[in-house]
Amino acid sequence: MGDVVKMKEIYFDNAATTPVAPEVVEVMNRFMTKNGVYGNPGSFNTVGLKALRALDNARAKAGELLGCGSNEIIFVGSGTESINLALQGLARANKNSNRKHIITSKVEHPAVLETCVFLEKEGFSVTYLDVDEYGIVSPEVLMNALRDDTLLVSVMYANNEIGSINPIKELVSVCKSFDKRILFHTDACQAAGYLDINVDNLGVDMLTINSSKLYGPRGVGLLYVRRGVLLKPLILGGGQEFGKRSGTENVSGIIGFVKALEISDNLSDSENKRLSELRDYFISEVLRIIPKTLLNGHPTNRLCNNVNISFIDVEGEAILLMLNERAGVCASSGSACTSKSLDPSHVIIACGRPYEVAHGSIRFSLGRYTTKEEVDSALSVLPGIISELRAISPVSLKMEDVAVYYSG
Amino acid sequence: MGDVVKMKEIYFDNAATTPVAPEVVEVMNRFMTKNGVYGNPGSFNTVGLKALRALDNARAKAGELLGCGSNEIIFVGSGTESINLALQGLARANKNSNRKHIITSKVEHPAVLETCVFLEKEGFSVTYLDVDEYGIVSPEVLMNALRDDTLLVSVMYANNEIGSINPIKELVSVCKSFDKRILFHTDACQAAGYLDINVDNLGVDMLTINSSKLYGPRGVGLLYVRRGVLLKPLILGGGQEFGKRSGTENVSGIIGFVKALEISDNLSDSENKRLSELRDYFISEVLRIIPKTLLNGHPTNRLCNNVNISFIDVEGEAILLMLNERAGVCASSGSACTSKSLDPSHVIIACGRPYEVAHGSIRFSLGRYTTKEEVDSALSVLPGIISELRAISPVSLKMEDVAVYYSG
Repeated sequence: MGDVVKMKEIYFDNAATTPVAPEVVEVMNRFMTKNGVYGNPGSFNTVGLKALRALDNARAKAGELLGCGSNEIIFVGSGTESINLALQGLARANKNSNRKHIITSKVEHPAVLETCVFLEKEGFSVTYLDVDEYGIVSPEVLMNALRDDTLLVSVMYANNEIGSINPIKELVSVCKSFDKRILFHTDACQAAGYLDINVDNLGVDMLTINSSKLYGPRGVGLLYVRRGVLLKPLILGGGQEFGKRSGTENVSGIIGFVKALEISDNLSDSENKRLSELRDYFISEVLRIIPKTLLNGHPTNRLCNNVNISFIDVEGEAILLMLNERAGVCASSGSACTSKSLDPSHVIIACGRPYEVAHGSIRFSLGRYTTKEEVDSALSVLPGIISELRAISPVSLKMEDVAVYYSG
Repeated sequence: MGDVVKMKEIYFDNAATTPVAPEVVEVMNRFMTKNGVYGNPGSFNTVGLKALRALDNARAKAGELLGCGSNEIIFVGSGTESINLALQGLARANKNSNRKHIITSKVEHPAVLETCVFLEKEGFSVTYLDVDEYGIVSPEVLMNALRDDTLLVSVMYANNEIGSINPIKELVSVCKSFDKRILFHTDACQAAGYLDINVDNLGVDMLTINSSKLYGPRGVGLLYVRRGVLLKPLILGGGQEFGKRSGTENVSGIIGFVKALEISDNLSDSENKRLSELRDYFISEVLRIIPKTLLNGHPTNRLCNNVNISFIDVEGEAILLMLNERAGVCASSGSACTSKSLDPSHVIIACGRPYEVAHGSIRFSLGRYTTKEEVDSALSVLPGIISELRAISPVSLKMEDVAVYYSG
């Protein structure tokens, strides 16, 4: 990747992180400087009380958007922290309980998977559910994994790499029919802004949302915790956030996050329509004009902004590099959270793709600022890049050997 | 406290949180929107790499300011999280070790004290050191508490309520002479910006700094961890921050924080001089013009921005309320982190003041934007407020009964 890329960047990495919306930056700026609302909500003076009021309003608005009480919302420092608080916090509260079984899926974000590995060392037993060829958890598979000692099920709402959407409502229902006490957490970091996040519609007990995937600021997230669910804090101190997460509240960040959530909610219908069309155009064109390509994830039951393609016989990193140099396209192989690893995507492997295919997978994640022209720019250079890379590739696989399933 | 205060606010609550410096806001804004550096540093594309480069530069600058390697700096979400990572992270790494003794002091921030209470339940034993009448830990007291199984000593650099400064260098030296393997962490949240934070000068193994006390953004902090010190992460996931703190890096927040640290470092000499003079003027005037007042904390060995006074026979909350209404003065009783509690300050109690005296204590924490005129405004209303409140007070204590020591 050259040191200076003069051409305009085409940002197809919105699932990794989104730029902050200008309206959000503007709101945040009003909560930072000496002329704004900069106080500590814990301080008993007018500057502090103004900050407290702003925080309370933001919390109420977030509650409205999620359909829950404002005291069921815990603001934290990231989606990852929220997931850790849900899982480790529940584990801490059940340290001496005999319900020590946790169920999750094989395609979760590392925040869930690594926390589960940690909890296994702490005496919990964890079942990692298989997914179907689209990366989706079926209610039957979950049903068969439930046990008398199951404490928690944590299954993501939509996958961060391939965009497939899980039937959360059905999964919750399977759990609750088996045993009402089993708690359900969903990582909704990729879903928020596009899918219904009303917690009662979904029936979940806990739900994680991250600001930085929603055109909000980095360093903020929230965990919804249904009234009555007992969690112990991970981060202890002054007892902020109902004793669940200590540390002075990041008021400007929270205000920006909730503003971003509100904007996303308002734009949800139009963006779903616009992006679904762009996504479908992108996918169908790639599959049409480039031979030996496979769509990863479900063809229709997927996030409107996710395109994930395997280019057979080619290394993903090489494609990324050339796309970036020739057209300024910024995409990802795997997810940003695991990009430092050279292993192929655990998600695409779990869907049943062979290693060689997973290695040549690229995620193009569209977003609010994506235009049809940008998609066309990418489409104009992709066939050439793939041809060139295939010409120097030492392998040439047969489609019937690698395509366990065709997703077209 | 009235709903609308028309008069100008006089902000004497800088120890609770500082407004963000305008230069810092400006820098942050360049890292947020579509026109800026908004990428995920983990993404292998030009937008991601620009963010990675900015993050690396900020980390290098922070290393320079602390006199350490950039890979010894872990960026986190708050000072409280940093303290929790230091203490719980070390505890996790030593779960199966036989060195399970931790030493701290009775006047630490709740982030340290509450984490220690948690660790006691996890099988650690904790010694809470007594402090002298100024809230200072003496090397002799620490020496007597060291044991063969001591793993960690965590003593704050400067107290958040009364501003007293601990002799960190001497305390470290006492530990290391006893046993080189004993690790030393210091909470430097209040000290940074005013006192030397060169980690080699201090000799500490871990050090916590918080952005939001330094005119930087909320929601960012750092933990310095000396090379070779083994910590296990609290927050697991994608393995960011050298595997010590997962979650997409808050690039704009970190850039703002480091910029704020740099500005504070540049202003340190002049601000120390200016604020020390203001502080001494404030203290001497209060003690001179209002009878039955006591200074809390050390008269000279204290932070240049801290004034903490006990007004005998009066409730702190009543003083705060009237100061706020009559002159727009925003101060605190105790610290903001514990202000929801009606208990008197654990710090002032630990210094040997009786409960009645601790209850009438007010912290005036000055800052970069504090002027002499503001101090004079406060001084002009304080005597009247105290007289009025004393006139309706049911108690009238004798100074010789409550002043275990005079700090004037």
